Amino acid sequence: MPDLAQGITHVDVLVVGAGPAGLVAAHALTQAGSKVRIIDIRPTSVVAGQADGIMPRTIEVFQSYGLAESLFKQANRVNMVAFYNTREEGGISKTQSLPVIDEKTARYPFLLTLNQGAIENIFIDALAERGVFVDRPVHPASLVLSTDEAELQDHSAHPVTAILERLQTAGGDRNSTETVHAKFIIGADGEANWQAQIPGLCVTIYLTLPSSDHVWGAIDFTTTPEVNFPDWRKICTINAANTTLLLIPREQDKLRIYVDLGLEDGLIDPATGRVATQSIDAKKLLEISRIGLQPFVIPPAEIEWWTCYIIGRRVATRFSVNERAFIVGDACHTHSPKAGQGMNVSMNDAHNLAWKLAYVLRGCADMALLKTYEFERRKFAQQLIDFDKWYESGFSAKNRSELLKNKGKSAASIPEAFREFSGLTSGVGIQYEPSIITAASKSPSQQLMIGRRLPPQIVLRAADSTPIEIQDTCPSDTRFKIIIFTGDLNQLSQQNLLTSFARIIAEESSLLSKYGSKVLDFITVMKGTKETVDYLKIPGFLRSNYRKHVPLFYSCFIEGGKVYEAYGICTEGAAVVVRPDGYIAKMTMLDEGDKIIDYFSHFLNF
Amino acid sequence: MPDLAQGITHVDVLVVGAGPAGLVAAHALTQAGSKVRIIDIRPTSVVAGQADGIMPRTIEVFQSYGLAESLFKQANRVNMVAFYNTREEGGISKTQSLPVIDEKTARYPFLLTLNQGAIENIFIDALAERGVFVDRPVHPASLVLSTDEAELQDHSAHPVTAILERLQTAGGDRNSTETVHAKFIIGADGEANWQAQIPGLCVTIYLTLPSSDHVWGAIDFTTTPEVNFPDWRKICTINAANTTLLLIPREQDKLRIYVDLGLEDGLIDPATGRVATQSIDAKKLLEISRIGLQPFVIPPAEIEWWTCYIIGRRVATRFSVNERAFIVGDACHTHSPKAGQGMNVSMNDAHNLAWKLAYVLRGCADMALLKTYEFERRKFAQQLIDFDKWYESGFSAKNRSELLKNKGKSAASIPEAFREFSGLTSGVGIQYEPSIITAASKSPSQQLMIGRRLPPQIVLRAADSTPIEIQDTCPSDTRFKIIIFTGDLNQLSQQNLLTSFARIIAEESSLLSKYGSKVLDFITVMKGTKETVDYLKIPGFLRSNYRKHVPLFYSCFIEGGKVYEAYGICTEGAAVVVRPDGYIAKMTMLDEGDKIIDYFSHFLNF
Repeated sequence: MPDLAQGITHVDVLVVGAGPAGLVAAHALTQAGSKVRIIDIRPTSVVAGQADGIMPRTIEVFQSYGLAESLFKQANRVNMVAFYNTREEGGISKTQSLPVIDEKTARYPFLLTLNQGAIENIFIDALAERGVFVDRPVHPASLVLSTDEAELQDHSAHPVTAILERLQTAGGDRNSTETVHAKFIIGADGEANWQAQIPGLCVTIYLTLPSSDHVWGAIDFTTTPEVNFPDWRKICTINAANTTLLLIPREQDKLRIYVDLGLEDGLIDPATGRVATQSIDAKKLLEISRIGLQPFVIPPAEIEWWTCYIIGRRVATRFSVNERAFIVGDACHTHSPKAGQGMNVSMNDAHNLAWKLAYVLRGCADMALLKTYEFERRKFAQQLIDFDKWYESGFSAKNRSELLKNKGKSAASIPEAFREFSGLTSGVGIQYEPSIITAASKSPSQQLMIGRRLPPQIVLRAADSTPIEIQDTCPSDTRFKIIIFTGDLNQLSQQNLLTSFARIIAEESSLLSKYGSKVLDFITVMKGTKETVDYLKIPGFLRSNYRKHVPLFYSCFIEGGKVYEAYGICTEGAAVVVRPDGYIAKMTMLDEGDKIIDYFSHFLNF
Repeated sequence: MPDLAQGITHVDVLVVGAGPAGLVAAHALTQAGSKVRIIDIRPTSVVAGQADGIMPRTIEVFQSYGLAESLFKQANRVNMVAFYNTREEGGISKTQSLPVIDEKTARYPFLLTLNQGAIENIFIDALAERGVFVDRPVHPASLVLSTDEAELQDHSAHPVTAILERLQTAGGDRNSTETVHAKFIIGADGEANWQAQIPGLCVTIYLTLPSSDHVWGAIDFTTTPEVNFPDWRKICTINAANTTLLLIPREQDKLRIYVDLGLEDGLIDPATGRVATQSIDAKKLLEISRIGLQPFVIPPAEIEWWTCYIIGRRVATRFSVNERAFIVGDACHTHSPKAGQGMNVSMNDAHNLAWKLAYVLRGCADMALLKTYEFERRKFAQQLIDFDKWYESGFSAKNRSELLKNKGKSAASIPEAFREFSGLTSGVGIQYEPSIITAASKSPSQQLMIGRRLPPQIVLRAADSTPIEIQDTCPSDTRFKIIIFTGDLNQLSQQNLLTSFARIIAEESSLLSKYGSKVLDFITVMKGTKETVDYLKIPGFLRSNYRKHVPLFYSCFIEGGKVYEAYGICTEGAAVVVRPDGYIAKMTMLDEGDKIIDYFSHFLNF
């Protein structure tokens, strides 16, 4: 790892922690042109174990950064979930199996599993291509956030002063320190000890709910057994008499078993509050799993990794101090592993925050934009906690005897929970509430919902009729996308509507002239068939290159692009503003171009 | 380029010519474990121009070798073809546009365009990974094929003796020579001068049809114009008053225009029989194109490459001498560029030949297997010539005035020709006639045709319900695939049928015991739904690893895998033998396992 950091004393953003959340933030900000420093206290990246589930919305986010290909190449695809429950004659049997993702609008109706280290490496490699390297083992020995109000409001100021300490290496070097001045700091290091150093954050860390603490064990097997259990390659939630198990098929035929150890006596060392190391080991976890899986057999298998940890449900009361110090990921929320959410929420925190920071750093937007980060993400974290509670109650230790008595109803409740919260856990149903960046207005579409991510839909590129996923026209390139549904341009009325819309955007406001393609991208979707549509009918400035820009998309009611129907767009067309992170922010009719300008005027400086 | 060839004096196969056909042969044979030497007289691979169209069946073949990904990354996708014709007021107008591929069973319902050099490099890179490099500039200075009948019949003999000459390099080295002994030689060098040196081949080169000679010009533009013609990114066949044009959109926004120059006076130099160099240049080709495209405009553009060449329709009368010297590609057939066939037929010649050579080289099959190469490929080449004649007659110079008079009918005839021959030109309709490797029996399926390639169909992998393309279970790994459609294994009768079929294959013949997975692969397709199917009901030897082998596939009538219906397989199931090159060779009912054994006994030694 080249030590490129020496001599750099001023950065835009200092990211503390190179787990998934920190890496997403560093990568997105670097791609947006910000100067980023990312440090991690660990000497190397994770090599085995840890988090592993990538949910549908997270896959879309990978895709939006151009990183999905690498993910798909390495990850295992999980399509189904099977539910097992105790049976009267002892042991377990299958009660039901379901598609693991039950969301009509999921572009990827499955989840992917891949070890956290491989996921981190996808971002580490992408950062390295841009000359940014994770500096490790380095931690912030001291942090000071200025309290000068003027400095805090000046987007070009560096109110964060960090003394970074390089930890001793094997070579026996003495710890060295350096001072870094940052405009913003992002805490993405989970345990967040450093937060105590920033006044404000230190008193707001956790809303602890100790009653929900659980001890979880996890064992990773290097191969999938070939014996009598038919569902190794599905996710299985197994409600056994002695425990609850969660089976996760992983990449390269690997397999993980989560074991819920509840809060049995002796598991927690009262002195440390952590798992008592002498109380549990891989052998014991395996034994509990073997008993739980009967009559099915776990044959002798090589164990790659195992762990035991306490986890509770917690949400930080604040996600930032003065919009200068932010926390993302496990630093602001934790949950049980059952719903496979941890890494997904964390990465999506960073995805939500990064473009907003980029806008403020560029001077395009006021600091107020940054308030929407906590506003949007804290609410979502709280929803997940609620789900986690409900989901876990279906097979927690204290409910177990009750489940046995009243099997039918309780057993069914787990699949129900799965479906009920599918939008939440898959991530595709996340809805952000109205704010300066998310309009409160009614939608002119029946299907598109303001505050939700743009749902997937195939459109055909007008120039060559190649099918394109409309989400792929909205990459995470920090630009707002204005998708213009033109209607049928063979009708003069639609041509006129489009012309007047274009005039307002292009001429009657300084929006386009000030920012142009730095902040805005236009996607035009015509109504027509691939045999008859003529993209030369679109005004010149709304198209440039047939491949990259605007004239290229049109809906086709014969094949692929039933986009008008799927999105509920009427024949008069519509304009849809999509945020840089892929969420629908505003929708108008084509004769309401002024409302688009008004939307941007609430947070863009023009 | 490392000179690895020194000291190698005995090879399995000497490939002369490293164009697409030679490279496919060398790659397939190397992948099959044969020792290959490949030489080329050109000092470097092609850098621009030349052939460019990859048809649907050829994409499937790339996919079967694991090379489609690289192709898709580089190539341009063409979905539509537009037909232009002269109009009464002068200039041209569009008469129709159609999907360029009109084949229901095409896995890839489009074609790809990519310059020949990039296509060659895909194979050159794949060969390099296996330590095989194209040796250049090297040509065969002399070739001798033994006439000793015993030697020719001994599959382990080296009856080909080649003296290879390394041509002078810039360094001024004198030509060096070496002697190579080969079991087989493949001529893939188009003009095939060396063939004169092999008795037998020298008298069988070409069936010349001089009346079909045409002079074609081609211009490659580096970018696609952004002006008033709407169909630059479609293939356009343009029947203008002054010429006929063929527009081909290419990778990286490039564009090719083919110009049919007919056989006008002065074009051919009577002394050489080649295009008279002073008679034509890029400027003249551009001028002809500009006039032909009116009222549409070709703006000033950078020309990357241009050429002019005579092409006729020819098929060699023989494709081999004693099944020891073979010719493939342009060495045995040439056609006009209009149907975009040249490179496709050439690569598929090599694809057809390679696995047969591998079987003979391994001693698994008799020399007689090799006779099927000419039998299968020469007939196909002849069909293409017939198509080429018919297609060209639609817009040849002598028909042009007639077209003007009787526009409606003649203009329509080109799209008609397109559709009529779609199976042939896309490659997905190729049908091989009965032979020792292609059974003459009736098919128990309504949809699968013996002698045609296995059509695409999505099936779900039983273990994890992941959708898989059934063609991808049949890669070009030189193995025959036996696809066993088991029917519904919840019915005892089907279980019994499957058990008896398995017993015949496994126990009552030496086929499996002699060759096992070296020659055979089994794919089991169950009938059922992903919620209820149990792959543990399949006999043990028909499955091994959930991912690689057999138990993994089953049809699902809910989503994706409507394979029983699509293939017309009855509820009693069926067994389908697929050749190593992907063609259906034999089909039986499950109580006819002996017929499978009988099929293999005609050409395999067991």
